[in-house]
Amino acid sequence: MTRSDCEELDRRDPLAAHRNSFALPDGVIYLDGNSLGALPRATSARVREVVEREWGDGLIRSWNAAHWVDLPRRVGARIARLIGAQAHEVVCADSTSINLFKVLAAALKLQTARPQVRARERRVVLSERTNFPTDLYVAQGLLALLGDRFELKLVDFDEMAEAIDNTVAVTLITHVNYQTGAMHDMAAITRRARHAGALIIWDLAHSAGAVPVNLNDCSADFAVGCGYKYLNGGPGAPAFAFVAERHLTALVDDPFAQPLSGWFGHRAPFAFDPEFAPAASIDRFTVGTPSILALAALDIGVEGVLAAGIDALRAKSITLTELFVNCVEQRCAGLGVTLASPRAAARRGSQICFAHAHAWPVMQALIARGVIGDFRAPNILRFGFAPLYVRYVDVWETVEALRDVLATKAWDRPEFKAIKAVT
Amino acid sequence: MTRSDCEELDRRDPLAAHRNSFALPDGVIYLDGNSLGALPRATSARVREVVEREWGDGLIRSWNAAHWVDLPRRVGARIARLIGAQAHEVVCADSTSINLFKVLAAALKLQTARPQVRARERRVVLSERTNFPTDLYVAQGLLALLGDRFELKLVDFDEMAEAIDNTVAVTLITHVNYQTGAMHDMAAITRRARHAGALIIWDLAHSAGAVPVNLNDCSADFAVGCGYKYLNGGPGAPAFAFVAERHLTALVDDPFAQPLSGWFGHRAPFAFDPEFAPAASIDRFTVGTPSILALAALDIGVEGVLAAGIDALRAKSITLTELFVNCVEQRCAGLGVTLASPRAAARRGSQICFAHAHAWPVMQALIARGVIGDFRAPNILRFGFAPLYVRYVDVWETVEALRDVLATKAWDRPEFKAIKAVT
Repeated sequence: MTRSDCEELDRRDPLAAHRNSFALPDGVIYLDGNSLGALPRATSARVREVVEREWGDGLIRSWNAAHWVDLPRRVGARIARLIGAQAHEVVCADSTSINLFKVLAAALKLQTARPQVRARERRVVLSERTNFPTDLYVAQGLLALLGDRFELKLVDFDEMAEAIDNTVAVTLITHVNYQTGAMHDMAAITRRARHAGALIIWDLAHSAGAVPVNLNDCSADFAVGCGYKYLNGGPGAPAFAFVAERHLTALVDDPFAQPLSGWFGHRAPFAFDPEFAPAASIDRFTVGTPSILALAALDIGVEGVLAAGIDALRAKSITLTELFVNCVEQRCAGLGVTLASPRAAARRGSQICFAHAHAWPVMQALIARGVIGDFRAPNILRFGFAPLYVRYVDVWETVEALRDVLATKAWDRPEFKAIKAVT
Repeated sequence: MTRSDCEELDRRDPLAAHRNSFALPDGVIYLDGNSLGALPRATSARVREVVEREWGDGLIRSWNAAHWVDLPRRVGARIARLIGAQAHEVVCADSTSINLFKVLAAALKLQTARPQVRARERRVVLSERTNFPTDLYVAQGLLALLGDRFELKLVDFDEMAEAIDNTVAVTLITHVNYQTGAMHDMAAITRRARHAGALIIWDLAHSAGAVPVNLNDCSADFAVGCGYKYLNGGPGAPAFAFVAERHLTALVDDPFAQPLSGWFGHRAPFAFDPEFAPAASIDRFTVGTPSILALAALDIGVEGVLAAGIDALRAKSITLTELFVNCVEQRCAGLGVTLASPRAAARRGSQICFAHAHAWPVMQALIARGVIGDFRAPNILRFGFAPLYVRYVDVWETVEALRDVLATKAWDRPEFKAIKAVT
């Protein structure tokens, strides 16, 4: 493999033109789109239109005239196409953490209401020890609020499927692990949960926009996901929530099954009724007034992913990550890096992690050279390959930079060790 | 009073220049800033800078380099100056509904933990029947989640003070009523709550940026408020939460006292610890990743309010609303409008409401003439006077338009009755 081979891959890349839709800075190879997606060129103009024309000129009238009031549903319907859901099963608002609180509460309500299961014995909320921590924090907070009725049980990534038994009320599982990129078999695990009588919540933070997801094909119950990673919605973009149609129906008579009961989830918000009565639709998974600026930016990001097509994105993602693993293994052999992601492309998302004893300063040295990846404690170099805008030559340059940083010990400098970790 | 008198008032208005800081459309008199504040001229450029420079060029690095990570605290600290709080007692994130859930849960936790009160007898969450409904919905949702431990008791606006007795765990009260503009005596009611051993949560949605508020002067416990009304943060702007320092201290050992425990509320989010441990600060009242676009826009809005000064704003607000009431009473006498706000300026916020049997089509007819107020069911014409950008001549023109619409029955047309209510 040479640099010209990579250039040739870029020339033949059917998605190559999509990179031009992004405003990427010069001199940067951006491999952190799984933490914060890059800026679509169309976003700035759209946000400006929302600010100046819709808000500035339209003022309060834009809730109707510019259809702000429908935006959580409209963006949700677009995301639905990326995750194998029906348009009316997905809504976009609030953060991933808050959406997880909503769907976990609803799932536990469904389990408690089922007459056929011995509800008292089904006390476990099952998740992974290496899940993204906010998912665990949210579960801990909700379970504390519910008293002693449920307990959180954590197992390792590889133990998840087997741990789903008839003590489990809800399985809370992240499709693609934030740290290693390892991907669960969604169909197999969802089937296992169904057979055990457990409900399942999929966190799609590192999946939506990067790998094909078919929630309804495998009869998933609930899902949440993030707007600011592969969906390119901008820093802190609203998240989404998926609730299978059958559960929307089952919950219709329980007004507080989704306990964050705010006015946007009411069936008639502008009747100003003092009693909460939830919308019979996915709208009940919204709470307060959503940020229109943030939703409008996310809408543009999702549009870009849809335009490329999720299958084409996945195909390129696999080629990019395979190339990266192969090149690192060849060109950085003996330099202390060990693959920390699954070797088989089918078992990972769109990121590749290598462990290194000095991962923190190594990553700082790469960033100083314009190669922006990420560090994850304790020793992980994380490289995200957003196939919408990452090129094959970027892979080549990254491997060269990594090899040089490692071979010359360029990372062994006080300024790289001193940089404070925040994100 | 004549139109020239109003023009003279505008010439002598010390806040007159602030109107130029807003991008108001031609041909519109905007009296709905209490529903959605107008667009500050500086906002569009600031949002563009955040999108293009901080997100586009800075990418993930901007969490540190552009201080995104501190934005909830920084905007909170600015809002603190408007509500008589210390900088470290206020944080800005999520919606008013969600913030209310957080502080109500924390307040109930504090009450449950107090050894000196007979906690079992203190079962009431007290609020107003005419409170903004989302506040009631959120309380209903949280109490349902907590089982039968607390009950929501609703009384009329004028009964609030007297209803605070030793059965009350938490009083949830909105300072300025959304429908009538009637304002509670914050100091007196907070004192009454303290004497009764109840905790108090103030909803400042229609206060922050419009009337002086001094939470710490009267030892208030908790507060929430809205970013998109008088703070001009844009549609669906983030809301704020205030927690008195003594409660932040008291809650420090209870990890889930604020039960929406997300990673931004963790004491070390980037340690990725699977166990939640809350920040010892107001940070624990944040949850997931906040929208940076939305916070940056709100920051500009708050800056404009601070530049004018809350006392000067209140003084102008009183002159504007007095003028409006006087003119309507003189010039619309016998035309079927009845004042629905308190007559005494000291007992109301920055809005004036009139009841009219045909309020809905009357307001539509006014809007068709460029006078944008609001309708609130069942029969309220609501006019908000944001003193940063509303002029005395606007008051005059509004009264003239109202008089003409009523006198000529211009409202009695099918198109005005047919317009669908959404906001």
